[in-house]
Amino acid sequence: MLNETQIINQLKAHFPHYIGDDAAVIPSSGNQSYIVSKDLLIEDVHFRTAYFSAAQLAHKALQVNLSDIAAMGGKAQFVLCGIAIPVEQGQYAQDFLEALAIACKNAGVVLIGGDTTRSTGKLFISISVIGSSITENIKYRSTAKMGDVVCVAGNLGYAHLGLIACEQTLPDLSNYKNALLCPEAKIDEGLWLAEKSCVHSMMDISDGLYIDLKRLCASSQSAAHIELNDLQPPAAFKKICEHLHLDSIKIMLTGGEDYGLLCTVDNTHYATLAQAFKHKFGYSLQNIGTIVAGRGIYFTENAVPKQLELIPFSHFGEKL
Amino acid sequence: MLNETQIINQLKAHFPHYIGDDAAVIPSSGNQSYIVSKDLLIEDVHFRTAYFSAAQLAHKALQVNLSDIAAMGGKAQFVLCGIAIPVEQGQYAQDFLEALAIACKNAGVVLIGGDTTRSTGKLFISISVIGSSITENIKYRSTAKMGDVVCVAGNLGYAHLGLIACEQTLPDLSNYKNALLCPEAKIDEGLWLAEKSCVHSMMDISDGLYIDLKRLCASSQSAAHIELNDLQPPAAFKKICEHLHLDSIKIMLTGGEDYGLLCTVDNTHYATLAQAFKHKFGYSLQNIGTIVAGRGIYFTENAVPKQLELIPFSHFGEKL
Repeated sequence: MLNETQIINQLKAHFPHYIGDDAAVIPSSGNQSYIVSKDLLIEDVHFRTAYFSAAQLAHKALQVNLSDIAAMGGKAQFVLCGIAIPVEQGQYAQDFLEALAIACKNAGVVLIGGDTTRSTGKLFISISVIGSSITENIKYRSTAKMGDVVCVAGNLGYAHLGLIACEQTLPDLSNYKNALLCPEAKIDEGLWLAEKSCVHSMMDISDGLYIDLKRLCASSQSAAHIELNDLQPPAAFKKICEHLHLDSIKIMLTGGEDYGLLCTVDNTHYATLAQAFKHKFGYSLQNIGTIVAGRGIYFTENAVPKQLELIPFSHFGEKL
Repeated sequence: MLNETQIINQLKAHFPHYIGDDAAVIPSSGNQSYIVSKDLLIEDVHFRTAYFSAAQLAHKALQVNLSDIAAMGGKAQFVLCGIAIPVEQGQYAQDFLEALAIACKNAGVVLIGGDTTRSTGKLFISISVIGSSITENIKYRSTAKMGDVVCVAGNLGYAHLGLIACEQTLPDLSNYKNALLCPEAKIDEGLWLAEKSCVHSMMDISDGLYIDLKRLCASSQSAAHIELNDLQPPAAFKKICEHLHLDSIKIMLTGGEDYGLLCTVDNTHYATLAQAFKHKFGYSLQNIGTIVAGRGIYFTENAVPKQLELIPFSHFGEKL
């Protein structure tokens, strides 16, 4: 069967103007546009009820969608929730919906509707979020420019370590488990970066830096060069990866579900922007590479070209 | 576990202003609003691939949502599709998405995005549609007035007969099978009725007249009186029901998936409206009852009160 990229390309052929970003942009009033995203969360594909409480899942379901809106530079306003509920999970689903309503209120968004039905199989959740933005501030994947600095806001690979810890019921590692179970979308960062004209392109990192940067490059008809020495894992992260016999760099490149922001920035403005970002948010807008001519991602290590065998992230082994 | 109405009421308590109609209304520009709906289609809850071709399912998935928009008096503009695909149904899903893209084009709506993922269980489809309308034309469930004529546009019970025919693999009955497999949303009728100020409330009939009219009455804090003699089944429909040992009136009252329109009309304007409707659309806007004080639905037969035991429609026996 086709993979997700092939399916998207198939649909994009019919509607080239719209499909291909984290969210779609439709007209609103004056200089504003609405930004619309939709994400599915499928039991045993994206989560397991064994280690996701209903409240954690509600929080995550919302944040995943808020992240899509933030990645376009918008502010979320409205949410719709579709849920298909197996009979034996009635209480879990009820708790989920109650927690979702509260999470929406806390995030300042309004739950405006949806659909509930039973499921003969797994628990199936579909969230749609509608946000808004000043039209000219909206950021796309397709507008990276040659020479741009490739930047990441947020940790890389933390949620993947968390997934391993949850799947293998490892003790401790709560920092990483939280990254998986309770991600926080980079909402303020997305809005702030969207206001800056030196930020040429943006998306969120939901499927792992490697695959998502490849998508951004493909959209922008360009390539990225990553010097692996610039991708230094934090010491504690590295230590746990070593303990688990994992390659920390590979986990940082392929781990999904971190919901950081990936953006490309005019190289003459990067230093100033990074300083202001650090001052505003208290952590770094990391420089991890450069947009270059070509296709795909080129890696170097100490300036020497390096081939990496990277397997794109999937939650439980299979991938569409 | 809670049923769908209880779940909706639980969420409505948090967001009373929005939830409760076929679709939600959000601001757009000038005198326009956007109307947003979301519907789930779950394999073996709403459809079976045994008798739904991928193209039929795509057509229906779109029409079900277009019906929600039409029921509010809006015109659909944008569609998002989320789909979770079991590995063995890859080709079916691909055909579905291709057919959905074409169905969208034919309906003059733009597929702007969505999400695709695998499913470890059944095929799950979530469609969201965004339509628009002149704000003051939008019709709600909650605005029926005492004395209004209760009107139905479209056949009642046809899709239910079609479901029985498909489930029992009965020969012929293609008219009814088509009603189930290829419903046509009452798009033009919805827009036309929305322009009429004498139409006080409107919704679509997706779960059966009885349950949907009860919902409209509950929203409008009123009741409806139905004289069963006014609900005459067409001769051919009646004959088939008799042949299948079914009560044709009960099938008309409880059969779901017809996607007709239910509206309530100022009684002084009904006759003129019905004449204009017949002239415009070539079939009748049926008068099936009256909005009265109280709660629920009151039935009479030849003006004598009648109790009916009605089991709300569910596709394959179970109901959330």
